[in-house]
Amino acid sequence: MAMKKENGATMADDGERRRSVIGPPTNPMVTPLLTDLYQYTMAYAYWKAGKHTERAVFDLFFRRSPFVGEYTVFGGLEECIRFIAHFKFTEDDITFIRDAMAGKCEEGFLDYLRKLDCSEVEVYAIPEGSVVFPRVPLIRVAQLLETTLVNLVNFASLVATNAARHRMVAGNDKLLLEFGLRRAQGPDGGISASRYCYMGGFDATSNVAAGRLFGIPLKGTHSHAFVSSFMSLDEIVDKSLRSADGTTSCEDFVSLVQKWLAKIQRTKFLSGGFGETNLSELAAFTSYALAFPTNFLALVDTYDVLRSGIPNFCAVAMALRDLGYKAMGIRLDSGDLAYLSCEARKFFQAIEKEFGVPGFGKMSITASNDLNEETLDHLNKQGHQVDAFGIGTYLVTCYAQAALGCVFKLVEINNQPRMKLSEDVSKVSIPCKKRCYRLYGKEGYALVDLMIGENEPAPKIEERILCRHPFNESKRAYVVPQRVEELFKCYWSGNSDKMREDLPSLKDVRERCMAQLKQMRPDYLRRLNPTPYKVSVSAKLYDFIHFLWLNEAPVGELH
Amino acid sequence: MAMKKENGATMADDGERRRSVIGPPTNPMVTPLLTDLYQYTMAYAYWKAGKHTERAVFDLFFRRSPFVGEYTVFGGLEECIRFIAHFKFTEDDITFIRDAMAGKCEEGFLDYLRKLDCSEVEVYAIPEGSVVFPRVPLIRVAQLLETTLVNLVNFASLVATNAARHRMVAGNDKLLLEFGLRRAQGPDGGISASRYCYMGGFDATSNVAAGRLFGIPLKGTHSHAFVSSFMSLDEIVDKSLRSADGTTSCEDFVSLVQKWLAKIQRTKFLSGGFGETNLSELAAFTSYALAFPTNFLALVDTYDVLRSGIPNFCAVAMALRDLGYKAMGIRLDSGDLAYLSCEARKFFQAIEKEFGVPGFGKMSITASNDLNEETLDHLNKQGHQVDAFGIGTYLVTCYAQAALGCVFKLVEINNQPRMKLSEDVSKVSIPCKKRCYRLYGKEGYALVDLMIGENEPAPKIEERILCRHPFNESKRAYVVPQRVEELFKCYWSGNSDKMREDLPSLKDVRERCMAQLKQMRPDYLRRLNPTPYKVSVSAKLYDFIHFLWLNEAPVGELH
Repeated sequence: MAMKKENGATMADDGERRRSVIGPPTNPMVTPLLTDLYQYTMAYAYWKAGKHTERAVFDLFFRRSPFVGEYTVFGGLEECIRFIAHFKFTEDDITFIRDAMAGKCEEGFLDYLRKLDCSEVEVYAIPEGSVVFPRVPLIRVAQLLETTLVNLVNFASLVATNAARHRMVAGNDKLLLEFGLRRAQGPDGGISASRYCYMGGFDATSNVAAGRLFGIPLKGTHSHAFVSSFMSLDEIVDKSLRSADGTTSCEDFVSLVQKWLAKIQRTKFLSGGFGETNLSELAAFTSYALAFPTNFLALVDTYDVLRSGIPNFCAVAMALRDLGYKAMGIRLDSGDLAYLSCEARKFFQAIEKEFGVPGFGKMSITASNDLNEETLDHLNKQGHQVDAFGIGTYLVTCYAQAALGCVFKLVEINNQPRMKLSEDVSKVSIPCKKRCYRLYGKEGYALVDLMIGENEPAPKIEERILCRHPFNESKRAYVVPQRVEELFKCYWSGNSDKMREDLPSLKDVRERCMAQLKQMRPDYLRRLNPTPYKVSVSAKLYDFIHFLWLNEAPVGELH
Repeated sequence: MAMKKENGATMADDGERRRSVIGPPTNPMVTPLLTDLYQYTMAYAYWKAGKHTERAVFDLFFRRSPFVGEYTVFGGLEECIRFIAHFKFTEDDITFIRDAMAGKCEEGFLDYLRKLDCSEVEVYAIPEGSVVFPRVPLIRVAQLLETTLVNLVNFASLVATNAARHRMVAGNDKLLLEFGLRRAQGPDGGISASRYCYMGGFDATSNVAAGRLFGIPLKGTHSHAFVSSFMSLDEIVDKSLRSADGTTSCEDFVSLVQKWLAKIQRTKFLSGGFGETNLSELAAFTSYALAFPTNFLALVDTYDVLRSGIPNFCAVAMALRDLGYKAMGIRLDSGDLAYLSCEARKFFQAIEKEFGVPGFGKMSITASNDLNEETLDHLNKQGHQVDAFGIGTYLVTCYAQAALGCVFKLVEINNQPRMKLSEDVSKVSIPCKKRCYRLYGKEGYALVDLMIGENEPAPKIEERILCRHPFNESKRAYVVPQRVEELFKCYWSGNSDKMREDLPSLKDVRERCMAQLKQMRPDYLRRLNPTPYKVSVSAKLYDFIHFLWLNEAPVGELH
């Protein structure tokens, strides 16, 4: 849905490759003004110095993967391209910039901004949904765009990575539901989280707006307030329910539920654990089943899971079954989820056996309540019977690490390589307009990412190549790749005839992410003490970096 | 700017109080669909059960203040009211809801949604910018709105509180600049952060969009990339600069800068610390000064702060001074900020003395680079010479605690009080439609917040009243208030004639926040081991809560 082709899709000049029209940013607040003031002050200083026509190359990259892990899922590219495709100042924007610069800029600069768009810009990037590593540029592009692009990539990649990590702990056979909207960092914190959690491997969201914008499957049940808003069964006015096949109608579904509750209570094995159930809860469940007979999923912990919620649920589920409906299951939102899920499973299995209802024992159990990677891991260790996890706060706010540190560094200007120095080696940037490759080994796993200068020959299959750590002299290895993947593709070529990639649908990006994770050796991805993946440069680029470094750094004087 | 009165402001029916028209939500993505699916499934179940016309009362509150603190600054109200004022489904929304519910709902329900707006809703709330405490409702209102309101309040309050805490550590005499857009959780994560940081006590932001939307002062300098994009002084083409008073013009400002650099290098005391400075940096500073002679602020750590950045800055600043301009100062973005700021100060003071330039020693020093409450505290302890702090990642993503746990609980339906039970006492909600008061003592400080039933008499000045902890029998105190403040005001009254508060400007909200913080005893606000503020209920409400609790909870059976 995210990328439904818009009207007016055109053919590229070569007539071979279709270029769909690129829509505007999903959030209308993403405009050229969504940036730091200094982008404008610098732009003005460049303009004053006549440097605004120089061709600069910037790399967007990060220095460390989040969550004490060794990989990152790259998200946010589509929004960057949408922003670039629609980059244009309105007259109101211009007026505001003039005011913001307190009358300190000349009219000529404002005229320059008026005409500015991204028709001269080229954007190369790694495809969205790829598994990516520190220092390898994700996007290669130009200034003024810095803050916005970094903003659009940082959270997207962070939350996609977080989702992928939750998927890894939960296992592929569990349903993962994102329930985070209410705790997210603002409206599109929530909307982006839903989108990029789906990309990173979640199955559905509760967020209706995200479902609509991106076609993500929607899931939901009801809240505690729904349960406590009922007082008694007498409140239910319309008690009739038509059977699933439409042939008959039960005039008093409420009595049918009560009959089943009594039966369950009379059963020796089952009744041992509970006395009277809460009847306002039973009223809420019955009401919900009347509204959603094909989709009955009940939150069972408003009063007491084992003494009230589960027996009440089973009574309603059995009544539904009499009319040919199959209940969906329960949700647990508090307490000892491992223990409660096991007890619920036993109860369902006992019902299956006692009343001869095949499949009832397999009733779906959803768990929620402040879940995160660690609690999922604990649940696995304790043993549980949960089929689906609803995850919110920790997932969508990336509580374990709330920010990814993507940066945007100048690497070349007017064909002159530039690098940012720092006393902290991890902060030194890799200069030059580069090409990046991923080299694969015999077993199909990725071995190493390799950056080379733009004019160096590409690495070739079955040809030995020296891969060097960019800053550690002693770390280097010969690699004989079995497969070579060029990482950058052109996603924006402005007005030029150059081909560009179409933006894939969110579903395709999600599939790319799943496929990429499978191509990584599991020890790179594991939760505890993962192996760092190797990111390297060619011998030639290595030498050049260190030549430039010596050249730029001032020589110290000790007195 | 945030609340500039829109055209068409109308007079209230009573002709006395002006009601300005309430604008739409700041983020156009805030629509009735920005919610959890279950709000719709529940709404449908209510509708099916004929309960949709019942009058329900919900409280929005939180259970624990963030950042291991004991207070919270309430933010987000204006956006909630904007959302409510414009709550209306489009036909597209309705179509999407029908699809999302997979054809499981009747047309009558969709008709009901078509007609639904908030003209029957009343919203009472504590004024935005207030200092608030756990369990006291911030907003009192109705269902369907749950997820959206919680989303709008959670992050707003979290980040406003974070800003207030940073202000407290930094002290009132420092300039606090919010620089977080690039690291924020998405576009409006950044925009909201700028807004609510200003509310919580910051002075300015770098975020241009936030400056425009809310009238927040904008600040910024330039980046490392700006510095490294210059190669040499030869690149500067237009070298002329008119003097500040416009009377003369310097034809070769570059030479003037070089002359000053040579003078500084010749000065014995100064030259001890450095040899040759980096000339591409000098070119960048000179260029920036030519563009912004009245606003020259330089980032001095691209190559080496003490050996290059500061001497280069001083050369440009002195050249500017010759033409009657006053340089603004420097920014440090790496290294040992305490040490570097002290060394920079010494250098400035030596320049003042050596060249007889009064005031040069007081040159402003801005520090940035991963600052947070803790690093500010460390800087204070080490001693520093920083005048302004630029704070980003940790501030805007609320890294120390990325989410606030606001909840939305049913407290009354059809005049029947309801409460949510839980084995965890901290999760039990306080039932009934309540009134809330803040009681002040002799010294002008707030003593306690008190919740009472809707029909109980309000506490009176100088009249003794028993305040009880809502759940701990033994905690209670008599209070004789010297001042009584009713906390709730009506912010939305739908179509009724009831008066409502106008929404104050962001500046006024910010001032309220500052004033409220001053009314709190400092030990409630301190960073380490703060005293918990007392939140209490009346004796009558206490008794009622515990009566209801016993009534609703199932009695256990032990076997």
